[in-house]
Amino acid sequence: MAGGVTVAVVGATGAAGQTTLRILEERKFPVRELRCFASERSVGKTVTFAGEAVPVLRFEAAAFRGVDIAICSAGSAQSREYAPLIVKAGAIVIDKSNAWRMDRQVPLIVPEINPHAVRGHRGILASPNCTTIVTVMPLKPLHDAGRLRRVVATSYQAVSGAGVNGIAALREETLAWARGESVTPRHFAHPIAFNLIPAIDGFADDGYTGEEHKLVNETRKILELPDLAIAPTTVRVPVFTCHSVAVNAETEEKISATRARDLFAGFPGLRVWDEPTEQRYPMPIAVEGQDDCFVGRVREDLSHPRALNFWVVGDQLRKGAATNAVQIAELVLRS
Amino acid sequence: MAGGVTVAVVGATGAAGQTTLRILEERKFPVRELRCFASERSVGKTVTFAGEAVPVLRFEAAAFRGVDIAICSAGSAQSREYAPLIVKAGAIVIDKSNAWRMDRQVPLIVPEINPHAVRGHRGILASPNCTTIVTVMPLKPLHDAGRLRRVVATSYQAVSGAGVNGIAALREETLAWARGESVTPRHFAHPIAFNLIPAIDGFADDGYTGEEHKLVNETRKILELPDLAIAPTTVRVPVFTCHSVAVNAETEEKISATRARDLFAGFPGLRVWDEPTEQRYPMPIAVEGQDDCFVGRVREDLSHPRALNFWVVGDQLRKGAATNAVQIAELVLRS
Repeated sequence: MAGGVTVAVVGATGAAGQTTLRILEERKFPVRELRCFASERSVGKTVTFAGEAVPVLRFEAAAFRGVDIAICSAGSAQSREYAPLIVKAGAIVIDKSNAWRMDRQVPLIVPEINPHAVRGHRGILASPNCTTIVTVMPLKPLHDAGRLRRVVATSYQAVSGAGVNGIAALREETLAWARGESVTPRHFAHPIAFNLIPAIDGFADDGYTGEEHKLVNETRKILELPDLAIAPTTVRVPVFTCHSVAVNAETEEKISATRARDLFAGFPGLRVWDEPTEQRYPMPIAVEGQDDCFVGRVREDLSHPRALNFWVVGDQLRKGAATNAVQIAELVLRS
Repeated sequence: MAGGVTVAVVGATGAAGQTTLRILEERKFPVRELRCFASERSVGKTVTFAGEAVPVLRFEAAAFRGVDIAICSAGSAQSREYAPLIVKAGAIVIDKSNAWRMDRQVPLIVPEINPHAVRGHRGILASPNCTTIVTVMPLKPLHDAGRLRRVVATSYQAVSGAGVNGIAALREETLAWARGESVTPRHFAHPIAFNLIPAIDGFADDGYTGEEHKLVNETRKILELPDLAIAPTTVRVPVFTCHSVAVNAETEEKISATRARDLFAGFPGLRVWDEPTEQRYPMPIAVEGQDDCFVGRVREDLSHPRALNFWVVGDQLRKGAATNAVQIAELVLRS
């Protein structure tokens, strides 16, 4: 791979696809050739990579011949259809959709946590849901130190999780409000400006949403703890691109707040901002544009002898999506 | 009291004070005479009550002679100073600040929950913190049915909790953003527009905020459960006037989601909006202006055999402050 690899980005005009192009550049991923794909209505447009305009191509399996790695940020339905065709054409697929994550033959990877899982892939590797990534990052060092028993995770999710249309909805609804117009929903089921929507993805019979089930199932798979007890609540908030999660984590062995801060600070990809008297804690506007996840408000639980409360924030488009996918691609190159 | 009572509203120009005037009208509280007080800079202005302009007076103890009930929405420091003087002048004080809530001689009342506590007051009665009220409303019927053991409460708090300056901050920061200007904090320690601030009130040595300690201590006092285990996290969100709380509640006896919905629906002051397939759940923009608290997303915990997750939303200025205080005044009149 000395001369670099041929990379395809599928869904290149979307929010996560655009961020993927930026991160391939930032991390100096050894791109020899780049091919960009998007849905029919974007064909003919161009996207920018390394200062050059790259044409957006129509998806067809033949166009993937010679591609080494395809990073896909398409919808689940497209991914279910395309990924096997791309693998057949000879490329390795790193998929950011929900299509393959729980497939037993597909590794689901957060490179700081389970890089070993990259071995044994059969052509498709999955990147987890954005909220899962932000939540599981601090859980891993806690589990290694004291074995997790139960997690109550309550999210505050940015509109970027719903892609460019989600971002546009918050922007346009807010601008309408500023003009004195009434706010009508532009993308979500309800207005998101100055509101909270306690429902992301569809509902299952048990009353939990798809997003909440993803958080449970993917966290268990990544941590290789198939029975880990997790109580999830996921909520959309009027924030542009960072997801925040309030976590209550119970461990078998007691971990003090001081020890937890050390564990978080020592874990790759995590940083600690926890100086409350200086008003320093992670916030969406401060974390936006960063690749790491930031932990703060670390405190021993008032209600349980072996639990901790903390607050973690990550850029949904970066570590929550594009950065994690590019890190998986780097793992693939090294393996 | 056939001819009505003389009512004083202290802090009448603030967000909670203004709402108090509206609610006294709405609930047809038997006001014979109204006297309004506010800080020095508002003296000389007027407020509106029942279609009439009422002058704003300077606080002085003598001005409370003949007042039957004083509803105070001043700051804690002022309340600590004024309340005893008002009582001495012969009035009963209903105080919304943090000054008296945990005083053993002061009843802390949510009228639907502990109306009996009104007996034995010594002149001052306290209305709880807004987040406490919204959280404790659904906890009461669950406790009565199955005895609460542990609560993990994670809040999404509106800017109105910080008064008119909090509301102005979100409004002005957002308007600045709409004009393409950079957003600088107008009232909170950080910008609140499109952001989350995971810190409300000052920090204690244990890493919890004053707001989080209030939620724990006041909930215990109202429910008369001095040892109830509560894990609190309180977060400011860019929402105008409704507080939302994601609650995980563990009980000694199992309560099914169906039973919990019935318990909530049967409790005065609570309403259930829980038809997820019709995208119906409580949201700030839908609850704004309502006196009841609204519960939804009721579901049995995936991680615990005797726990429930639910989501509750209440108008911070109404049930969270003014409505609850006026309800306490009604209790006082009846007792």
